[in-house]
Amino acid sequence: MIKYSFENDYSEGAHPRILEALAESNLKQRTGYGLDDECAEASEKIREIFGCPGAQVHFLVGGTQTNMTAIAAALRPHHAVIAAETGHINVHETGAIEATGHKVLTVRTEDGKLCPADIETVAALHTDEHMVQPRLVYISDSTEVGTIYHKKELKALSDACRRLGLLLFLDGARLGAAFACAENDLRPEDLPELCDMFYIGGTKNGALFGEALVLVNPALFEDFRWMIKQKGGMLAKGWLLGLQFKLLFTDGLYWELAAHAEKQAAEIRDGLKELGVEFRWDSPTNQLFPIFNEEQVEKLSENFRMTEMDCLDGNRRVVRLVTSWSTKPEAAEEFLRAVRNVTGY
Amino acid sequence: MIKYSFENDYSEGAHPRILEALAESNLKQRTGYGLDDECAEASEKIREIFGCPGAQVHFLVGGTQTNMTAIAAALRPHHAVIAAETGHINVHETGAIEATGHKVLTVRTEDGKLCPADIETVAALHTDEHMVQPRLVYISDSTEVGTIYHKKELKALSDACRRLGLLLFLDGARLGAAFACAENDLRPEDLPELCDMFYIGGTKNGALFGEALVLVNPALFEDFRWMIKQKGGMLAKGWLLGLQFKLLFTDGLYWELAAHAEKQAAEIRDGLKELGVEFRWDSPTNQLFPIFNEEQVEKLSENFRMTEMDCLDGNRRVVRLVTSWSTKPEAAEEFLRAVRNVTGY
Amino acid sequence: MIKYSFENDYSEGAHPRILEALAESNLKQRTGYGLDDECAEASEKIREIFGCPGAQVHFLVGGTQTNMTAIAAALRPHHAVIAAETGHINVHETGAIEATGHKVLTVRTEDGKLCPADIETVAALHTDEHMVQPRLVYISDSTEVGTIYHKKELKALSDACRRLGLLLFLDGARLGAAFACAENDLRPEDLPELCDMFYIGGTKNGALFGEALVLVNPALFEDFRWMIKQKGGMLAKGWLLGLQFKLLFTDGLYWELAAHAEKQAAEIRDGLKELGVEFRWDSPTNQLFPIFNEEQVEKLSENFRMTEMDCLDGNRRVVRLVTSWSTKPEAAEEFLRAVRNVTGY
Amino acid sequence: MIKYSFENDYSEGAHPRILEALAESNLKQRTGYGLDDECAEASEKIREIFGCPGAQVHFLVGGTQTNMTAIAAALRPHHAVIAAETGHINVHETGAIEATGHKVLTVRTEDGKLCPADIETVAALHTDEHMVQPRLVYISDSTEVGTIYHKKELKALSDACRRLGLLLFLDGARLGAAFACAENDLRPEDLPELCDMFYIGGTKNGALFGEALVLVNPALFEDFRWMIKQKGGMLAKGWLLGLQFKLLFTDGLYWELAAHAEKQAAEIRDGLKELGVEFRWDSPTNQLFPIFNEEQVEKLSENFRMTEMDCLDGNRRVVRLVTSWSTKPEAAEEFLRAVRNVTGY
Repeated sequence: MIKYSFENDYSEGAHPRILEALAESNLKQRTGYGLDDECAEASEKIREIFGCPGAQVHFLVGGTQTNMTAIAAALRPHHAVIAAETGHINVHETGAIEATGHKVLTVRTEDGKLCPADIETVAALHTDEHMVQPRLVYISDSTEVGTIYHKKELKALSDACRRLGLLLFLDGARLGAAFACAENDLRPEDLPELCDMFYIGGTKNGALFGEALVLVNPALFEDFRWMIKQKGGMLAKGWLLGLQFKLLFTDGLYWELAAHAEKQAAEIRDGLKELGVEFRWDSPTNQLFPIFNEEQVEKLSENFRMTEMDCLDGNRRVVRLVTSWSTKPEAAEEFLRAVRNVTGY
Repeated sequence: MIKYSFENDYSEGAHPRILEALAESNLKQRTGYGLDDECAEASEKIREIFGCPGAQVHFLVGGTQTNMTAIAAALRPHHAVIAAETGHINVHETGAIEATGHKVLTVRTEDGKLCPADIETVAALHTDEHMVQPRLVYISDSTEVGTIYHKKELKALSDACRRLGLLLFLDGARLGAAFACAENDLRPEDLPELCDMFYIGGTKNGALFGEALVLVNPALFEDFRWMIKQKGGMLAKGWLLGLQFKLLFTDGLYWELAAHAEKQAAEIRDGLKELGVEFRWDSPTNQLFPIFNEEQVEKLSENFRMTEMDCLDGNRRVVRLVTSWSTKPEAAEEFLRAVRNVTGY
Repeated sequence: MIKYSFENDYSEGAHPRILEALAESNLKQRTGYGLDDECAEASEKIREIFGCPGAQVHFLVGGTQTNMTAIAAALRPHHAVIAAETGHINVHETGAIEATGHKVLTVRTEDGKLCPADIETVAALHTDEHMVQPRLVYISDSTEVGTIYHKKELKALSDACRRLGLLLFLDGARLGAAFACAENDLRPEDLPELCDMFYIGGTKNGALFGEALVLVNPALFEDFRWMIKQKGGMLAKGWLLGLQFKLLFTDGLYWELAAHAEKQAAEIRDGLKELGVEFRWDSPTNQLFPIFNEEQVEKLSENFRMTEMDCLDGNRRVVRLVTSWSTKPEAAEEFLRAVRNVTGY
Repeated sequence: MIKYSFENDYSEGAHPRILEALAESNLKQRTGYGLDDECAEASEKIREIFGCPGAQVHFLVGGTQTNMTAIAAALRPHHAVIAAETGHINVHETGAIEATGHKVLTVRTEDGKLCPADIETVAALHTDEHMVQPRLVYISDSTEVGTIYHKKELKALSDACRRLGLLLFLDGARLGAAFACAENDLRPEDLPELCDMFYIGGTKNGALFGEALVLVNPALFEDFRWMIKQKGGMLAKGWLLGLQFKLLFTDGLYWELAAHAEKQAAEIRDGLKELGVEFRWDSPTNQLFPIFNEEQVEKLSENFRMTEMDCLDGNRRVVRLVTSWSTKPEAAEEFLRAVRNVTGY
């Protein structure tokens, strides 16, 4: 019997405060397509908290939609995107970027993060009209393998991008997780300073759905709503997105939910380390990648849902565990207890 | 002061029963991406009610997304779509179909509806490899100008499509409105019999959002979920869509909500006709297109939100009024009273 | 037995002078991809003759390729093209423009030509983000129905484009024919003054193949060669194009060939008019659209190849006859004689 | 002073026999767009020589155009291509494949060749709808690094493709070079047996331009001409392509020209090896990749044009030398003499 699913951080609905607010104003008539007061207020809150009074904020339903709309809007046909080989747009979006006509140039990394040398190498290889022209660098924070960018790293990457004439786009589907992490030294106001655009994930941090895309570089502003509509991302009842983000950025709910998820992850991480369990990637955030053997995975899977990521030599399996804003402390404890049982430590 | 908005049928949230069900199971952990029980149950209900046990049902968030995903999945690069000039995909989706690479071939119509002769003419003109190849016919019911297809008409169109090797796709964003209309003689089970695919609109009939796409022709089944993901339409918490459609098709809620909207529209339609107001299109559904003069529009707009559609000769304006599942009878009455005042009848 | 084909103006090879030049320098080693001396010299000649010293000139193989590359390079994804319904990009390029993601907004015309009111109407209808955004106006000179733009007309259209923020692109696949026509009052230097870009057709005026695209507006310059390569239009032995255009613009060969074609067309046009034959479009150029009855078409087709364009009431057929740089005077004479026979005049 | 360019195998025009035939029938009127007798005869010759009586043959102008048209025609939107990282479509076509919407999944290789294990690995990683679906394997023979497929290798790859449901497409831009090579054990008739489609390169083996695409798998036949036209590849005077291929496959001219190029390459290859020059790739065909030091490259470049490919440690440079159907024996000799001088051997 499955007691708890660590499959992802979007298995549950929304934080109850969101549902309450929704129910309260459900029958109010509102302007469609995100031109309502909720979206205006949510945008304003985000501009304040992230310290970018001149930015445009757009609310979209999901991550793939946000990535492909933002990237397609920023590029001319011959432009390409640079991403880590593990980048979400490269492996988990069914070629959505390519479907808008753009090549994703990939870089092999140890930890899912790009550094200046990576993009310099790619830029140096693409010199003439027989090759695509790199124009945008896509990163995620936290990354697909749970790691985060430290301020120094993001600054260096941002500097390299500006030097090379590349736009920098940060996918913050799990921005809460990154910022909640003990190691993190980035503050909200660093993002608009260092990136040309970024998005703040709601789906994976307590919203029913929704991502808030922040366009910082004014070169990206023109007609952006046309792009949203064309790519199928303009929600008729757009206020649903505004209302959720307004709440998430009221009284620090967004950060609080992320902190909760991180606390449960820390519990499991520390517990597993104590038991000597190895990790595939050293993630300080809410995605953990412990290594178990096949039998252990099988046993643990009787009660816990996890994702098998990879098979290593000698019968070892990398699994992914994700904690969320609604993971109960008991779930973490029970999981550790189960690991103790199956590992025999 | 605005007393009521007749701007569209998606100004409010969702039917309260939907919000209640949402709140009830909010914290239940569910499989992502529409592979959950809610979606399975909702699909099953739809297959039963529409009498198509072998159909595939997919839930998407919005109309443009549904149209472009369904059409792009069905076509090869040189294939084109035939649509009425007023068709939603032609005028109100920011070129979403063309953005997937396909031409929309348009037909001028009086009433927003296609007939066999229309598509025969288009087919006859596209004969060789220097021209696109018509492959799919897009219609909507009710149409963008409020009209509906009678069974005989849809049957004739369907026959012509099959004769010409064309797929038939029915956009049912306002299928409820069409079926609720007194003139309607189509039954749910007629759609899978006559169309290759169709969608049932939730956004405009009481859901927070959501459209249920029904693929009838097995040639359209293969890998459809790949297309949804690539086009950015795969909702992480897909169960939100399943849960809503399950409720809408429980105890006839979907038809009940549409009947309510139609009742309010009938009230206004009949009232206006009595007052001698003319209409641009003779719509039997929840979209009405009365003609007022400029001053009348201005006065009415002080208390009611409407959409200006067109300017006719002699200072006359076509406006659009839309009633919804939540339009109160008082709103219709008040509007008629206001018309009486401004027209001086 | 077919004595002569009036099917088009590209049934034969190239003017002999071109083949000679080709043979002469066939074994010379040259830089690839249009970066050779021939292309440089041809570009320089075109810039001089058309009076646009700052323009970029690019040589491409064919018309569809040129249209789609130029248009795709100029537009962002939500931008649309305005064209006459008869426009080549709308009917005879198998959706090549749409395949690059852009909608073609069409205007019904009497004579294949756009006027300011046409584009003002389209612009006025496209006002918000639910619709594509018109950005470029596509015209051809001579048009697909053989008509030409007078200077006053082109000036008015150009002014309207600038007022409305639209780019103007002139497809000169048959620019020679337009300029050779007695009515024409446009001079080469008018094109760069009035258009943002245009192309000079070689395929239909004595080259083996080739179109010279002239980018006038510097906003269109950036990375254009990337676009050519991506769209498959970068010819390895690009010098073949340069060499041909260099010759065509040496000693006025281009104008001379067009004048020859026009002379033959005039012969036929005048002869037919004398015989009382009606025309579907009143074309002053090398495409003629006489109307014959079915039996006449059948008889004439025994000896002459023509294209059937349309069926009119009462058994009447519109055919298209095209003369070329290599049409012999005898062919025109023989055709007229045959018409006299079949019509019995 | 540049004595000879080894920059590529398309620096010169065409074999004189081609120009003669062209001149001879230059003024003959022919049907446009490849529907002429020359194309029909050339197709027939190719079907005979390659032993595939049921195949479709299409003639296109260039390689990028052929690759993108063939691949786009074969795939649905979510399908991806597997290619070697060095594959022409991956690095040297400015993202033409992605511009048609498809991802290129790359495999690192030692020698530019794919083996069954490569494609099995890619297939195994792409399992669900969140990822693209590999559908076509792209290889080239000879490859971009001059290597060739032996029959056993191609057979094994073909078997793996069929097992995995993947189409196999062989880019034969340098098929002549591959077949002329001493090591080669593939015969023409092996290609249609092992591949679903392949193309025979003319541009790099004595034609002015042109590639002959052979569709073997009947699933790829439908409406292919529509795809050619849409992608801008339908040449008005298509007979130019047919005439060239007809001649190339008359009296074995195609093989003869390739043999000549290979003979010159062998001369240089053997000469350099004798001198102890190292090679980056061990190419048995007409592309050679010797390693010189910076000073040597500089000196040699005074008289010979070559392409710098890469910088290795310690001041070493990889250059590329290409011989062609028209490389004179003297050029090879002179080059070897120059190398002797600069290396001081």
